[in-house]
Amino acid sequence: MDPRFSDLLTPAVKALRASEIRELLKLVKRAKDIISFAGGIPDPKYFPRKELVEITRKVIEEYGDYSLQYSETQGVMELREALADFLYRVRGIKADPENILVTTGSQQSLDIVARAFITPGSKVITESPSYLAAIGVFKLAGADLVGIKMDGKGMKTLVLEETVKKLIELRCKPKFIYTIPVAQNPGGVTMSLERKKHLLEIASQHDLLIVEDDPYSYFVFDENADITALKALDKEDRVIYISTLSKILAPGIRLGWMVIPKELTRRLELLKQYLDLHSPTLNQYIFTEALRTGLVEKHIKKLKNVYKVKRDTMISAMDEYFPSYTWYSRPIGGFFVFTYVFKKNFDSRKLMNVAIEKYKVAYVPGQGFHPDGSGANSMRLSFSYPDPDTIREGIKRLARLIEEV
Amino acid sequence: MDPRFSDLLTPAVKALRASEIRELLKLVKRAKDIISFAGGIPDPKYFPRKELVEITRKVIEEYGDYSLQYSETQGVMELREALADFLYRVRGIKADPENILVTTGSQQSLDIVARAFITPGSKVITESPSYLAAIGVFKLAGADLVGIKMDGKGMKTLVLEETVKKLIELRCKPKFIYTIPVAQNPGGVTMSLERKKHLLEIASQHDLLIVEDDPYSYFVFDENADITALKALDKEDRVIYISTLSKILAPGIRLGWMVIPKELTRRLELLKQYLDLHSPTLNQYIFTEALRTGLVEKHIKKLKNVYKVKRDTMISAMDEYFPSYTWYSRPIGGFFVFTYVFKKNFDSRKLMNVAIEKYKVAYVPGQGFHPDGSGANSMRLSFSYPDPDTIREGIKRLARLIEEV
Repeated sequence: MDPRFSDLLTPAVKALRASEIRELLKLVKRAKDIISFAGGIPDPKYFPRKELVEITRKVIEEYGDYSLQYSETQGVMELREALADFLYRVRGIKADPENILVTTGSQQSLDIVARAFITPGSKVITESPSYLAAIGVFKLAGADLVGIKMDGKGMKTLVLEETVKKLIELRCKPKFIYTIPVAQNPGGVTMSLERKKHLLEIASQHDLLIVEDDPYSYFVFDENADITALKALDKEDRVIYISTLSKILAPGIRLGWMVIPKELTRRLELLKQYLDLHSPTLNQYIFTEALRTGLVEKHIKKLKNVYKVKRDTMISAMDEYFPSYTWYSRPIGGFFVFTYVFKKNFDSRKLMNVAIEKYKVAYVPGQGFHPDGSGANSMRLSFSYPDPDTIREGIKRLARLIEEV
Repeated sequence: MDPRFSDLLTPAVKALRASEIRELLKLVKRAKDIISFAGGIPDPKYFPRKELVEITRKVIEEYGDYSLQYSETQGVMELREALADFLYRVRGIKADPENILVTTGSQQSLDIVARAFITPGSKVITESPSYLAAIGVFKLAGADLVGIKMDGKGMKTLVLEETVKKLIELRCKPKFIYTIPVAQNPGGVTMSLERKKHLLEIASQHDLLIVEDDPYSYFVFDENADITALKALDKEDRVIYISTLSKILAPGIRLGWMVIPKELTRRLELLKQYLDLHSPTLNQYIFTEALRTGLVEKHIKKLKNVYKVKRDTMISAMDEYFPSYTWYSRPIGGFFVFTYVFKKNFDSRKLMNVAIEKYKVAYVPGQGFHPDGSGANSMRLSFSYPDPDTIREGIKRLARLIEEV
């Protein structure tokens, strides 16, 4: 068949490449003998099914007139109120329900940010490495990304300061700074309190917008790590805060939320209206009840222990099996270990097929996490899904791959 | 507070205006004494709660590992298979599950189409009047819309043919033709079979893409109306077919689907990945069970009678109360009556406040449905939500408004 319509696609859509994470999920789902360290997928053993059945029954039987109906673009008021309460208690963030926008998951929040601010050539600052799908959607909108390196204390804010000054001198003021300050994906580090304050100072000095992505702060295992949210320190209302239900309850419910500077809330809500009118009302009522009944907080507490054991297992297996010419993060929280292999011509993307077919182990190639396209020798390993024995076996397989190729 | 960040917004987002439908929903929800003919909102009395409670229990208890988890961007395979079966039986459409894309409601389907094909200045052909929110999202992407008038047999395809030729001569080949062929929103007409075939011929001759929006064909009350889907006649695979669960089960579940020409499926799936990763898995399993158990089809049958009575009530009340200088459609199906008021300076948008505050009745101003911005003297009236007595009372109020202002 002759391609007839592909020419009609916009240049940005023609240039789209499949995200490795999503393609892998397909492969791995179909082949049960592969151990997957790919997506940041919650362990389904712990989904609170019984509680969710009861909540859903209540939400449909008692609030059916509302929960099955169209609802406001901004999100159901009951949910925005419950979220404001939750954010204050758990994250120290004072949010007015009027400035909360409920979304169909964090990916939509990132798309809203991208579409609201980015035009082709817009500068956007991110950590390097940073979250693959955020980099993807910013690039789709045409952003020119500038990556800032991290160390054990998170984004190097002195480097950030220099970079911002240079960009402003060049009349390329960044549209915003995108950061995952706590339990960074994929770096596994947390920004120190000093750095957080410095970041806010830099933003204040140059009147910059900050986009804070906060999916993993509920799972920080090391007591010394500072889990303060930037938004909790944000006295000038210049932080857009993004978080998600996917890790703390269940990704299949597909809800996220944003806390937005007052000045921008109405605009971003209007934009969302064109994207999907509103997020599923039924799911919003389920989320509301899960917050009100304390299920979310109880569930976080339980999961934190589960994921800590998994992290410890992965790190100790890597200590045991990985060759000396590798470096890997020691994540203070979150779902991921990030690793570099210092071996000539080691290209984790090219090795994907061999890894899956011969070694029966999957990961996410690290290149997509680097805003500048470097990092061919890196990979992201998620410990959230497999059980501890499987993690050890998977790390053994991966070590063999690294040594043998 | 000085606006600091609004300048960072893209020109398209700066120019966004609130959709009247959504703003009205807010107003009307808060004031219970207003009779609303605004949004195309299903009557919640008929939501099948008991059945949905049972389905949801099953979906969480039995398939919790999958239904609460991340899932494939394209949509859960079980749902795509059930949809293919449903589309064949109910709409005569032969769709391969591989070419179905599950979306977070029709609005997202329209946004996907807009983002995939439209760049600023792209020509897009629609009926005139056409669906407000489709016009909105096409314009957001920068489309230059060309409206084709309708008569009792739907879009005037002779006019379409001339328009297409002219545009091609001017080297402005339209990106696609957007049509709601059956029970058109807001026109209430259905395209005759001859016109449908003519439309496909024109598309074939000039190698054009067609986007068919089909939310209301399940509610066609007049036996003489031809309900054939364009997609069912589409031998050359040039129709993107869009439909939704919102009208046939419940909008709060927020799911829609697209049947996509083979050549484009993969690209549009990739694009959706950036928008929200995938639509809510839980909702997809609920939809699957609602199709498998026959609930959807049983529900359609019941609703068809309900909405027929409401349409008859609205039309007979308009016959009785509306002054002679009005014209209104006699919809063969769907949720809407469209009306023009031929009275000097009658501007339905400007009258909204008076209508709501003094006459306690709401409608959607018709201007937004006209791609060329005409139609200030028109309005769309939905009969789907209020019960018959309320419809009569609302029409009385509206007639008074028209006569008194």
